[in-house]
Amino acid sequence: MTKSPEHEHPVKAFGWAARDPSGHLSPFKFSRRKTGDKDVTFKVLYSGICHSDLHQIKNEWGNTIYPVVPGHEFVGEVTEVGSKVQKFKVGDKVGVGCLVGSCHSCDDCARDLESYCLKGVYTHNSTYYDGTPTHGGYSNIMVVNEHFVVHIPDNLPLDSAAPLLCAGITTYSPLKYFGFDKPGLYIGVVGLGGLGHLAVKFAKAFGAKVTVISTSPSKKNEAIEHLGADSFLVSRDQDQMRAAMGTMDGIIDTVSAVHPLLPLIGLLKSHGKLVMVGLPERPLELPVMPLLMGMKLVAGSCIGGMKETQEMVDFAAKHNIAADIEVIPMDYVNTAMERLAKADVRYRFVIDVRNTLKAE
Amino acid sequence: MTKSPEHEHPVKAFGWAARDPSGHLSPFKFSRRKTGDKDVTFKVLYSGICHSDLHQIKNEWGNTIYPVVPGHEFVGEVTEVGSKVQKFKVGDKVGVGCLVGSCHSCDDCARDLESYCLKGVYTHNSTYYDGTPTHGGYSNIMVVNEHFVVHIPDNLPLDSAAPLLCAGITTYSPLKYFGFDKPGLYIGVVGLGGLGHLAVKFAKAFGAKVTVISTSPSKKNEAIEHLGADSFLVSRDQDQMRAAMGTMDGIIDTVSAVHPLLPLIGLLKSHGKLVMVGLPERPLELPVMPLLMGMKLVAGSCIGGMKETQEMVDFAAKHNIAADIEVIPMDYVNTAMERLAKADVRYRFVIDVRNTLKAE
Repeated sequence: MTKSPEHEHPVKAFGWAARDPSGHLSPFKFSRRKTGDKDVTFKVLYSGICHSDLHQIKNEWGNTIYPVVPGHEFVGEVTEVGSKVQKFKVGDKVGVGCLVGSCHSCDDCARDLESYCLKGVYTHNSTYYDGTPTHGGYSNIMVVNEHFVVHIPDNLPLDSAAPLLCAGITTYSPLKYFGFDKPGLYIGVVGLGGLGHLAVKFAKAFGAKVTVISTSPSKKNEAIEHLGADSFLVSRDQDQMRAAMGTMDGIIDTVSAVHPLLPLIGLLKSHGKLVMVGLPERPLELPVMPLLMGMKLVAGSCIGGMKETQEMVDFAAKHNIAADIEVIPMDYVNTAMERLAKADVRYRFVIDVRNTLKAE
Repeated sequence: MTKSPEHEHPVKAFGWAARDPSGHLSPFKFSRRKTGDKDVTFKVLYSGICHSDLHQIKNEWGNTIYPVVPGHEFVGEVTEVGSKVQKFKVGDKVGVGCLVGSCHSCDDCARDLESYCLKGVYTHNSTYYDGTPTHGGYSNIMVVNEHFVVHIPDNLPLDSAAPLLCAGITTYSPLKYFGFDKPGLYIGVVGLGGLGHLAVKFAKAFGAKVTVISTSPSKKNEAIEHLGADSFLVSRDQDQMRAAMGTMDGIIDTVSAVHPLLPLIGLLKSHGKLVMVGLPERPLELPVMPLLMGMKLVAGSCIGGMKETQEMVDFAAKHNIAADIEVIPMDYVNTAMERLAKADVRYRFVIDVRNTLKAE
């Protein structure tokens, strides 16, 4: 007999879940495993809202297992650690991102690239090795193997640090992997949302000259005055785009809508790299000639490994980088999702779980 | 008054040219400049036929300037050198590829990547800095700045060395640039033609395990027995393709017809690289999800710089690598083009210019 989510595990937990493709979130009782030898248990304090939560609660990728408790960028305070836990103690401030498990034996795991492990377990909407569903950070507590937990340095505000665990590593990792972290490079960032605004901050911290490329001319002041970008291109302005051709060493493309790649490839210098971190629902058109004539490349990148995630958080703390956020109460989450669908947020919603998630 | 090709320059030359989009080649008188201070003049001995010659004589890329004397992979014997020439002397065996000029001052030129110089001058169907058209190797003599000339080592047969100057460098350069030259890697080669068969030979010489991926099951024996590939996949056999998913570090895709990228991206391990060296006439469909989930990339590559071209020829000589060719007389060239259009050649036609090109 299958146990109900509330009785699968011994530890009572509660959060907000979506039950069907309406995506409506509402209070949900479930359970978490007791703290294992290598587990860290923590009280969730803040949980960011990522656009992929929205895709998932509405089953827009066709793979949602209901009920689903979203949330894969969240921070909290450790309340218990297992007997074999080495890196954490009670009271530590910690964070969890997209991953809660990997095989630890494949080539990717061996190279600290757990995010590419084919047996990786995602923080929600996934099945753990014991066969039970995983549930994310829109909840009161979390139990997770310490390998998938990172320390949050003291000087990072906990609320604005939460989005680093997904949006932060998603932009930091490709900046590092593709060599965009060398000072003096010209780096483009396409789309100024949750991912884009952190890409700008990291690229600036690496010493790049950063150009924001956006469909919205209204974001120019914000990009330059507030986020410190060096220049701004309106992607629909062909004169601007033409004038900037061949000027960029690399581009981080955060747009998840279907969009043309040709103008972006055109912005690259020869040997330039266009890296996509957004996930359009259909294949894009790839013009081959401009890739060949400039030895250019188009790549994809997906979050990052755990070692790099800790490195990213430490780098963010050192450079005072955190997300620009709007803190919301738990019961505002459905409204927040509606606003997120319209990109009406600068730049990330973060749920104040500690103070506003109530046991029903 | 515009001078005729025969009188533009002081040195009489002759070759075979196409005059219109029929692509028919026939004898053609023209002229070459006299040997400048930094020029090497040589008697053409062998000239390979590249598929892009066929595209060009028929104006399939829409940019052909008639009359055009094709040929951009040819070798010969030096007959005269300018007063400031340092690297060559009369009697040397030399080769010329796709390039006869570049700006020598841009970033690409500074990094010995002349093939990406935006002011590069191609060996034919291009306009030289003096405003006159360039003409290629289907001709009796060549005059070219020594920077764009390479030495052909004594142990390389001149006829089968000719295709190295285009097909050779086109496959060698991406193998090096994308790090496919480390022993023990698993490398795929898509398409077994003029480019593909050399890609197999170079990849094997670098110590790779090489898989040929082809639509033609009939090429399996040839690929494995003759060219030394380790395995063979029929790209239309979904079972074979599925079984090979996630096994390759890199792929060189030589196919210039429109074809699906998804199965090729699927063959790559995470962090794998798909490099296109063929030029399909339309954009290809790029599926983004598999790029993201595996941090994979799709790139293009176009010939290589002059320093690397010499390195490639020297490497080929050291490892006894040359093209598999069918030597033809000059007056067979139109038939050869018809056969090339049907891929009826193993694997490259080479014109015996020395013995069969006659002054009319």
